[in-house]
Amino acid sequence: MRVLYLNGPNLNMLGVREPAVYGKTTLEDIELQIKERASQSGIEVEFRQSNHEGELVDWVHQARGTSDAIVLNAGAYTHTSIALRDAISSAGVPTVEVHLSNVYSREEFRHKSHIAPVCVGVICGFGMGSYLLALEAVAQYTKNVVAKP
Amino acid sequence: MRVLYLNGPNLNMLGVREPAVYGKTTLEDIELQIKERASQSGIEVEFRQSNHEGELVDWVHQARGTSDAIVLNAGAYTHTSIALRDAISSAGVPTVEVHLSNVYSREEFRHKSHIAPVCVGVICGFGMGSYLLALEAVAQYTKNVVAKP
Amino acid sequence: MRVLYLNGPNLNMLGVREPAVYGKTTLEDIELQIKERASQSGIEVEFRQSNHEGELVDWVHQARGTSDAIVLNAGAYTHTSIALRDAISSAGVPTVEVHLSNVYSREEFRHKSHIAPVCVGVICGFGMGSYLLALEAVAQYTKNVVAKP
Amino acid sequence: MRVLYLNGPNLNMLGVREPAVYGKTTLEDIELQIKERASQSGIEVEFRQSNHEGELVDWVHQARGTSDAIVLNAGAYTHTSIALRDAISSAGVPTVEVHLSNVYSREEFRHKSHIAPVCVGVICGFGMGSYLLALEAVAQYTKNVVAKP
Amino acid sequence: MRVLYLNGPNLNMLGVREPAVYGKTTLEDIELQIKERASQSGIEVEFRQSNHEGELVDWVHQARGTSDAIVLNAGAYTHTSIALRDAISSAGVPTVEVHLSNVYSREEFRHKSHIAPVCVGVICGFGMGSYLLALEAVAQYTKNVVAKP
Amino acid sequence: MRVLYLNGPNLNMLGVREPAVYGKTTLEDIELQIKERASQSGIEVEFRQSNHEGELVDWVHQARGTSDAIVLNAGAYTHTSIALRDAISSAGVPTVEVHLSNVYSREEFRHKSHIAPVCVGVICGFGMGSYLLALEAVAQYTKNVVAKP
Amino acid sequence: MRVLYLNGPNLNMLGVREPAVYGKTTLEDIELQIKERASQSGIEVEFRQSNHEGELVDWVHQARGTSDAIVLNAGAYTHTSIALRDAISSAGVPTVEVHLSNVYSREEFRHKSHIAPVCVGVICGFGMGSYLLALEAVAQYTKNVVAKP
Amino acid sequence: MRVLYLNGPNLNMLGVREPAVYGKTTLEDIELQIKERASQSGIEVEFRQSNHEGELVDWVHQARGTSDAIVLNAGAYTHTSIALRDAISSAGVPTVEVHLSNVYSREEFRHKSHIAPVCVGVICGFGMGSYLLALEAVAQYTKNVVAKP
Amino acid sequence: MRVLYLNGPNLNMLGVREPAVYGKTTLEDIELQIKERASQSGIEVEFRQSNHEGELVDWVHQARGTSDAIVLNAGAYTHTSIALRDAISSAGVPTVEVHLSNVYSREEFRHKSHIAPVCVGVICGFGMGSYLLALEAVAQYTKNVVAKP
Amino acid sequence: MRVLYLNGPNLNMLGVREPAVYGKTTLEDIELQIKERASQSGIEVEFRQSNHEGELVDWVHQARGTSDAIVLNAGAYTHTSIALRDAISSAGVPTVEVHLSNVYSREEFRHKSHIAPVCVGVICGFGMGSYLLALEAVAQYTKNVVAKP
Amino acid sequence: MRVLYLNGPNLNMLGVREPAVYGKTTLEDIELQIKERASQSGIEVEFRQSNHEGELVDWVHQARGTSDAIVLNAGAYTHTSIALRDAISSAGVPTVEVHLSNVYSREEFRHKSHIAPVCVGVICGFGMGSYLLALEAVAQYTKNVVAKP
Amino acid sequence: MRVLYLNGPNLNMLGVREPAVYGKTTLEDIELQIKERASQSGIEVEFRQSNHEGELVDWVHQARGTSDAIVLNAGAYTHTSIALRDAISSAGVPTVEVHLSNVYSREEFRHKSHIAPVCVGVICGFGMGSYLLALEAVAQYTKNVVAKP
Repeated sequence: MRVLYLNGPNLNMLGVREPAVYGKTTLEDIELQIKERASQSGIEVEFRQSNHEGELVDWVHQARGTSDAIVLNAGAYTHTSIALRDAISSAGVPTVEVHLSNVYSREEFRHKSHIAPVCVGVICGFGMGSYLLALEAVAQYTKNVVAKP
Repeated sequence: MRVLYLNGPNLNMLGVREPAVYGKTTLEDIELQIKERASQSGIEVEFRQSNHEGELVDWVHQARGTSDAIVLNAGAYTHTSIALRDAISSAGVPTVEVHLSNVYSREEFRHKSHIAPVCVGVICGFGMGSYLLALEAVAQYTKNVVAKP
Repeated sequence: MRVLYLNGPNLNMLGVREPAVYGKTTLEDIELQIKERASQSGIEVEFRQSNHEGELVDWVHQARGTSDAIVLNAGAYTHTSIALRDAISSAGVPTVEVHLSNVYSREEFRHKSHIAPVCVGVICGFGMGSYLLALEAVAQYTKNVVAKP
Repeated sequence: MRVLYLNGPNLNMLGVREPAVYGKTTLEDIELQIKERASQSGIEVEFRQSNHEGELVDWVHQARGTSDAIVLNAGAYTHTSIALRDAISSAGVPTVEVHLSNVYSREEFRHKSHIAPVCVGVICGFGMGSYLLALEAVAQYTKNVVAKP
Repeated sequence: MRVLYLNGPNLNMLGVREPAVYGKTTLEDIELQIKERASQSGIEVEFRQSNHEGELVDWVHQARGTSDAIVLNAGAYTHTSIALRDAISSAGVPTVEVHLSNVYSREEFRHKSHIAPVCVGVICGFGMGSYLLALEAVAQYTKNVVAKP
Repeated sequence: MRVLYLNGPNLNMLGVREPAVYGKTTLEDIELQIKERASQSGIEVEFRQSNHEGELVDWVHQARGTSDAIVLNAGAYTHTSIALRDAISSAGVPTVEVHLSNVYSREEFRHKSHIAPVCVGVICGFGMGSYLLALEAVAQYTKNVVAKP
Repeated sequence: MRVLYLNGPNLNMLGVREPAVYGKTTLEDIELQIKERASQSGIEVEFRQSNHEGELVDWVHQARGTSDAIVLNAGAYTHTSIALRDAISSAGVPTVEVHLSNVYSREEFRHKSHIAPVCVGVICGFGMGSYLLALEAVAQYTKNVVAKP
Repeated sequence: MRVLYLNGPNLNMLGVREPAVYGKTTLEDIELQIKERASQSGIEVEFRQSNHEGELVDWVHQARGTSDAIVLNAGAYTHTSIALRDAISSAGVPTVEVHLSNVYSREEFRHKSHIAPVCVGVICGFGMGSYLLALEAVAQYTKNVVAKP
Repeated sequence: MRVLYLNGPNLNMLGVREPAVYGKTTLEDIELQIKERASQSGIEVEFRQSNHEGELVDWVHQARGTSDAIVLNAGAYTHTSIALRDAISSAGVPTVEVHLSNVYSREEFRHKSHIAPVCVGVICGFGMGSYLLALEAVAQYTKNVVAKP
Repeated sequence: MRVLYLNGPNLNMLGVREPAVYGKTTLEDIELQIKERASQSGIEVEFRQSNHEGELVDWVHQARGTSDAIVLNAGAYTHTSIALRDAISSAGVPTVEVHLSNVYSREEFRHKSHIAPVCVGVICGFGMGSYLLALEAVAQYTKNVVAKP
Repeated sequence: MRVLYLNGPNLNMLGVREPAVYGKTTLEDIELQIKERASQSGIEVEFRQSNHEGELVDWVHQARGTSDAIVLNAGAYTHTSIALRDAISSAGVPTVEVHLSNVYSREEFRHKSHIAPVCVGVICGFGMGSYLLALEAVAQYTKNVVAKP
Repeated sequence: MRVLYLNGPNLNMLGVREPAVYGKTTLEDIELQIKERASQSGIEVEFRQSNHEGELVDWVHQARGTSDAIVLNAGAYTHTSIALRDAISSAGVPTVEVHLSNVYSREEFRHKSHIAPVCVGVICGFGMGSYLLALEAVAQYTKNVVAKP
């Protein structure tokens, strides 16, 4: 099984700014942990980050036929990108929306997700835990879908 | 560690109506699975269901001092109950909002959650999987908070 | 045939307050008339009233397998309860929404019904007549559905 | 007693298109049934249909002094015509709003009725049954008003 | 000078219903008074009424080249008819919007006029006086425009 | 009979700026014309202008017992002042809202009047003509009210 | 093949008013050109115009069984008529919405079309060209639908 | 004189959680103080708390004929319960809405009260003082009403 | 202790107009009663009224250092004045918002208060009683704040 | 004459996914057909696709001075991109907005186009036909503009 | 060159309250600095402050013919005063809107400016710097306009 | 000191199109002037332009640790990009939002800025002057922050 983790705008700044406040965990740290956990379950994980909406759309397309699932932290594009929504629909790869923070306890404009309606589900608020739970979720989901016939 | 699973209105009908369509999994089936998984991790789980908003509020209050975390599927009250929101705030017990279905791919009025802003996080869309992931989430969360000196 | 009449909040006050203004007809008077009319058609009627949203949800559930139809005057919960809406959907018992008054000639917030979309139909504005017409409506409806194959 | 049934735009197409889907009942069939039922109760019924808002307004005016009640299925004009609303107010003939379908389970823009606030009541969702129930409703209503002195 | 008075839906009911309440002045009475006053100023007045939006549009078109001004009481179509608005624009005849009642002290939906933006001005709230003032207004307006070289 | 003309903010600038564009008519010119016309009808007119909302409120109060009617061009305060609305209500002097321009063909925010609902009527769009028509309107109105018993 | 061109309110004024500004092309000119082009493709075209919403509804109904497609410029009724929308749905004749001007560069209220959702497609902004393109569009569309099985 | 104090959801948690932050005053402490003060004025006070909307509705009904006034802190139900509003209307017992905190300096959704329009008045923001002031308010109010004839 | 009572627009008309309807109590009567009650508690009261938003702002500023509390009935400015809100914030004198009537049972636009969020609390609906209760409220409030260290 | 066809996000997936459902026509197929048709009319066509908003903006700029017209299917960016709108305005190349599907029969958020107001016109709903009609539209449009001495 | 600095409500409190928190800079300090800087550039500056909307309107009018530019910090009136907007339009003196704080990082209601659309430009967020930058801005602006033969 | 000027979509077209209308100043001209002025103050300026949202985000990130301030004209992305907002927050470099035109006198959708709340301040409406004033603003701002010990 192969899972593609896509990280949207500004997630490359994780752990860089004011570590005393936001913690020192970088996106690379998360990547390492996810890969370690995934390898224990025989899951292959690829990790990418981009600040470009179009590049994220490209990557979602490429997942078609090459990945079994996408874990997508679209960052700010969650709230503004219909293009990503359509990409997920047209790629047809099961996608889980994740966020590190609980977006519902932040500004009103972060409560609206354009992509959630075309995802399998949403996990948010658990920090790096959101990424780990998503791994388990896609593992389960894929198993069930395969097992269904 | 002790986790209280609270299930809101209509969840008692799970698996009862049109099993050919919605599946035969009942709330009791979910309870069994969660408890089995929880016992493997040494977590004690209690499971309750009510169609009464006030009873759910009462139970959230009772969790104070008796449970380490709440997993709350508030059903329709998710979208209408400020009382439950205030209950979570006043009880001070870490709470995770869960839904079996992906509420964001359903009617518009199911996209608004009154309780999400005061929860630790949200997990939805994975069927019974949402409940299992929430177990892991609260286990992690509690560990981190304790560890945080 | 068996029909369950459910009456929501404040309907127990009918005829109690200022009878000179609102008339002296109580909910009990309505119940008597409905039962008399129903018995003429060989329909069994049960009448209940509650000010508790959760209790109304419970009763809708119980109608499943025990009643052929529900006549529901949800009172104020008509405008605020998604839980009742979901109860009607999950019970699968044909339900008719009724109101004594014409809710559309009252305050704006009474024009929105959360339950109408999942009911068979709506009857309002005819006082006790709404309840009588609903009896006829469910009788007809049930006959047609049964006759359809 | 004399009741005027007014049918608005597109109701002339009833039963014409795709009978396999929508049923074969035409407006003429409904008219026959209503008249048969009415004659049993000694009620005289007149049936008209128009796609013209202005003609419906004219007919509502003409009902003043010639009909005891109006049963009005204003079709799409229900949602857009303030002229019809004012016609009902100025004619002063008790009017019942009816719809064949349950408008509340259709598109959002069909939930708003401009005429309901000036009608005696509303009946919708019971197919031809809505028309029959309305007959009974106006019979009752007129009797009560007359009896009131 | 020639002025066309157009009266929209339900104005034919003026003075007909409940004269004790609304007064006995009919549209014909108003017509007589306006014509008398107009003849004193050498103004020719034509008076028409229709409940049909399309007929009012037709009449506005016909005013082009045959009338120097239109006084338009569009009744309920004031609030719903973009067709009338476009008719006024395309006919190019100076038009004054009038209302017998003060529409701003009535229901919210009567505060919006689709036609006011393409009229010369608006006069409302003075009963028959609105019609008389409009006569004077168009007389003045036409004089000024002619005088403007 | 005594009529108080109140002019709100910026009306003192009338005719001052860019006379080639906006015309050279000043508020003083309007005052002269109105007084001349009024004196022909034996009406006493007083004319005031202020840029201060509070002063306009004061003047409306003073009209009580000293003026038979108010003609009020509240300028921008038309759209923002609830204080003026309440002043008109509490003074109990019949008031006519006037505007030189057709406010409905200007910006959206000029379409809302806080004071219209408590005025007798509204006249707008006829330039100085609006003021002259208002004189006639209040003369008529007062006559009718007096004549009514 | 037979195509019915329906033209809504005010389109009869095309080319009549201010030809120096709006051009001299009348609806008759357009009709001639369309018919000429249509005859080259062996398509029979009928052209009608009405300012009456109800008449347009009637004509849409009549197209059923007599025309293969409708090209509809509903003018102002585009934005206000749910009756036309329902007529298109109930007639079941493929319909193309056209406009001479680009409605999206005009007032906000012209951006909303009640009929577009039940049409095959929309063409606007190309003047008479919109009508010509629509001819080609319905020719293509009908061919494809026929060819599909 | 007899006054019923009703306390809505979560008020039972007062003083329980984080006393260092929110203070140690419990609902029982408030009850004691109110009763002491009331007894000085010969007023009998009853104090109840419930997290159940339906129970609060029941209690409002029971106040009819047994209490002279209600002091109602409906907590979160203030913002969501039309049932409570209707209960107050139908019970006919003068009711004062109170809140410990100033709800207007909290979240937007706490600014809307469904019950305020049917209460005598509102007092909020003075902590326990709100309850004391309400006692005085109902004492005064009742005296005035009684004294009025 | 010194308390400044500020009264906004139109409160000078209290008791002046239609005493048979609104009562004969004038603002002066209220002032006398408040001062009498205040003197019993050793509180010095000053009473002012203005129809000018700017003057009310000036007075709020002057209260800084000269008054211990403000009781503010801002009348219509309650709903429109952000300037008053900022004045209260910048003066730093504890302020209580009062209204004679229950603003929540009046027009929708009176439900919004710009100043409530920066006040200590709100009291409305008790007629002159609102002013008396406010006196007690500020006495209590000031005592508590002083007592706190 | 030279026409630039720009295709926005996800159009590269056309015909790729579920061909049984959506058809097998790819963007390349469309390109071929358009070019074939264009060459018959001596029109040179260039075809590009990008998922990047910025790249589409770049291409619109490059069209200035190199293309006579743009046919733009902006996909999801139609509904979210003001940058594309400004690009069209600043490039000054006549642009036609096209869509394969009828966007008005899809989700509400697809009804709003940011770019339509600055385009010559809009064509949608005809599948590949939309692209063919647009070719004809720009050919006509350019001819007319050129011809307009 | 002569520049008029107008300061709206509450700016007189600058530096007065809680200097430890808000800083000790008063409006007088700002005035001194601006005048010093202005004199270096040979610009004459006048500084005024008022809490009265009407007085600010008066002053804007007086600037006509006596000042070359206005720098306007309208404080709270920025968000509520259409009168000020109209004053700026009618005075015809180039005006720059300034704010000490960044209004866009404060409450939502401070994001709307009624006056910005009729100003030359807006400068906010730089404390006293906003006033200094505005001086430079108007100097530049006036020079350019003068230079524009 | 080092300042990064970032220019968003379409600013590369400045001065290119219709120089007779929009002026001939290009972005390069502005760059030259800014650099000249900056060098006089010993400030190093870098100038970049991109039509890609993602590239602008990248550049904002790169400013961290390499620039002392950012001057950002985000063009159309001002109104649509939450990603840029988050980039500014996460980079922690003081940013000034600038616009050449006064966005508040343009279309409604240009009045909303997603980035203003996280900027130091906003300067708009002064053409190239906005860029010059921003240079001064960041110079001042940085000095103050540094000086603040």
